[in-house]
Amino acid sequence: MAVVALQSDVEAGAEALAVFDDIRAKRQTDYVNNFWRALAHDPALLRATWERAQAVMAPGALDPLVKELIYIAVSTANGCDYCVHSHTAAAKAKGMTSAQHGELLSVIAMAAQTNALATALSVPVDDRFRA
Amino acid sequence: MAVVALQSDVEAGAEALAVFDDIRAKRQTDYVNNFWRALAHDPALLRATWERAQAVMAPGALDPLVKELIYIAVSTANGCDYCVHSHTAAAKAKGMTSAQHGELLSVIAMAAQTNALATALSVPVDDRFRA
Amino acid sequence: MAVVALQSDVEAGAEALAVFDDIRAKRQTDYVNNFWRALAHDPALLRATWERAQAVMAPGALDPLVKELIYIAVSTANGCDYCVHSHTAAAKAKGMTSAQHGELLSVIAMAAQTNALATALSVPVDDRFRA
Amino acid sequence: MAVVALQSDVEAGAEALAVFDDIRAKRQTDYVNNFWRALAHDPALLRATWERAQAVMAPGALDPLVKELIYIAVSTANGCDYCVHSHTAAAKAKGMTSAQHGELLSVIAMAAQTNALATALSVPVDDRFRA
Amino acid sequence: MAVVALQSDVEAGAEALAVFDDIRAKRQTDYVNNFWRALAHDPALLRATWERAQAVMAPGALDPLVKELIYIAVSTANGCDYCVHSHTAAAKAKGMTSAQHGELLSVIAMAAQTNALATALSVPVDDRFRA
Amino acid sequence: MAVVALQSDVEAGAEALAVFDDIRAKRQTDYVNNFWRALAHDPALLRATWERAQAVMAPGALDPLVKELIYIAVSTANGCDYCVHSHTAAAKAKGMTSAQHGELLSVIAMAAQTNALATALSVPVDDRFRA
Repeated sequence: MAVVALQSDVEAGAEALAVFDDIRAKRQTDYVNNFWRALAHDPALLRATWERAQAVMAPGALDPLVKELIYIAVSTANGCDYCVHSHTAAAKAKGMTSAQHGELLSVIAMAAQTNALATALSVPVDDRFRA
Repeated sequence: MAVVALQSDVEAGAEALAVFDDIRAKRQTDYVNNFWRALAHDPALLRATWERAQAVMAPGALDPLVKELIYIAVSTANGCDYCVHSHTAAAKAKGMTSAQHGELLSVIAMAAQTNALATALSVPVDDRFRA
Repeated sequence: MAVVALQSDVEAGAEALAVFDDIRAKRQTDYVNNFWRALAHDPALLRATWERAQAVMAPGALDPLVKELIYIAVSTANGCDYCVHSHTAAAKAKGMTSAQHGELLSVIAMAAQTNALATALSVPVDDRFRA
Repeated sequence: MAVVALQSDVEAGAEALAVFDDIRAKRQTDYVNNFWRALAHDPALLRATWERAQAVMAPGALDPLVKELIYIAVSTANGCDYCVHSHTAAAKAKGMTSAQHGELLSVIAMAAQTNALATALSVPVDDRFRA
Repeated sequence: MAVVALQSDVEAGAEALAVFDDIRAKRQTDYVNNFWRALAHDPALLRATWERAQAVMAPGALDPLVKELIYIAVSTANGCDYCVHSHTAAAKAKGMTSAQHGELLSVIAMAAQTNALATALSVPVDDRFRA
Repeated sequence: MAVVALQSDVEAGAEALAVFDDIRAKRQTDYVNNFWRALAHDPALLRATWERAQAVMAPGALDPLVKELIYIAVSTANGCDYCVHSHTAAAKAKGMTSAQHGELLSVIAMAAQTNALATALSVPVDDRFRA
């Protein structure tokens, strides 16, 4: 169990329940996942996070699937097991193939290793890479 | 300056120089960036890293630009200043627009904050997100 | 189960047991939590960690509750699930309210996202922020 | 120089300039720090970040100085040099004493080391720490 | 359960199975651990990772046990629970004593705390430490 | 310059100066590096850190050079540029060869990439790796 109890629809207050309902409506599902039920202890934080997530993850200059891949990459580097699971599920729902998943993992692993090498050697940034 | 001196073409040994030449040939440029010049102290590590980078970053199920965006995301989360610079430059060279850059930053920031929230609350993974 | 077995009072050696007894006395409880029982395999490390923790977490220029909030913040950023749990429990025991917990989470999430943005943009430090 | 050029008031577009002006008005200063000038390339991200920062850092259940201490703690753990500088300056402006700074550093260092120990031993969370 | 299902010998394709067989032969054991069974979804990534691991972890200028200690140190700092477990087991199999394990933990904890202090103070690198 | 000004011998108070003198005596050098001069603002923290560093880094079940390699590994994963520099210098002073440095980097990079893969796949820990 989490650091705080997950709030069911019955336990959630009116403000949190309104966000749950908006999640259900926008996602066209009855299911509200644990992340939002844990955040429900602070309805203002719940709402701010949900509103921002919608704005950021909407289609734009980047494809929604690409945004999920980026999300998985950050979540992996930050070691967030919950987020790795939820966003890998989201990426699959948006069409990520097994081959794409494999390439995503390969790039993440490549970046992790060159990040470590550049840091361990404190490589100075090339002038041409600066704005 | 770095933890080790960067190796110029004159200072690099034959094995390292062969990798420098391959970098120039494959990238069709005379420029070999600092990362490779720092790695040249260990020619076997230099070669293994360069060979793997080519295999991983080649076009495949994911677009090369998308791979660069993923690379930037990981490098940001790992706090690698060198890699953020070099891969942002690479992404721009592959056509990343200012709007795409802004959306990339927005997704990275969103992931960073929900990673923190999920970790601080130790949210249990939903059964439906598990394989 | 952990990487090492937790040591019960019966399994712990005399040096480790002396620390367990000191923990019980100082905290006025019979309970010794798992962190100390795992550390008991190295009594010198156990004692050094316990002694330092007491010195650092004692009331001083900062309030003990504020110190717990800082501890949770670091533990979250470092992705330490055990520490997030133990120090959230400690903060509650020292009077952290639900509203304070919510604001703590909001600040942690805000910092996480601006950390990511400043890193992804490699923003140069303003002269006026330097000592 | 940063990954992107910092935008002066002249270079910033109307939307970014409006945020700069709001920063100046709310903070009662003529100075707009580099973080916002780097974000100005994406006015929507600039505004969203600034608006959220104001809401999160306002006085509430936690004191504004305590919020700055938490911010420094997260920024340290995430290795964000810019944020460590800017929020240490902010904490000093809000009255952080040298003694408080020293205790903040001591708690951050204590957390960092016990985070590492708990992770290296994979200590199981005590039942009593769970919600 | 993992983000992807672990592949048994029956489920693995021919390429992945060939790697499993090589792991068994080189390690002189029937057991193939979960990491490789999870990677089997992408046989090319599985093979590249296994081949590189063999090259890197082989005896050389550093002793194989020392390499395992370094691996544990990195895995701890990165918060990888799986890797902490698997490489602590590997270190024990290569002769790590309880006293060595205790000293490893002590150094990891010391580094974690001075890393935090140096970052929180943004200590400038001494000229004499630069190449 | 750092977040705080480095303290020269003249600026340091009596308590900090006593630690500086102890550093000089134990290390048989006139040089006190920047890390200690930055910590001098909090003499109690300075002393505690110096005392603990001596105890941890002394010869024991692990060789002093091996301890430096572990220190570099943690510092790299934590992205501490100062610590990477100071401990690479310390390792060289203790005899680290160029070949050993190359192998250290190779192991760090290998661990970084498999850490990322294990996290991105959330690989469950094998029963046999548990205590």
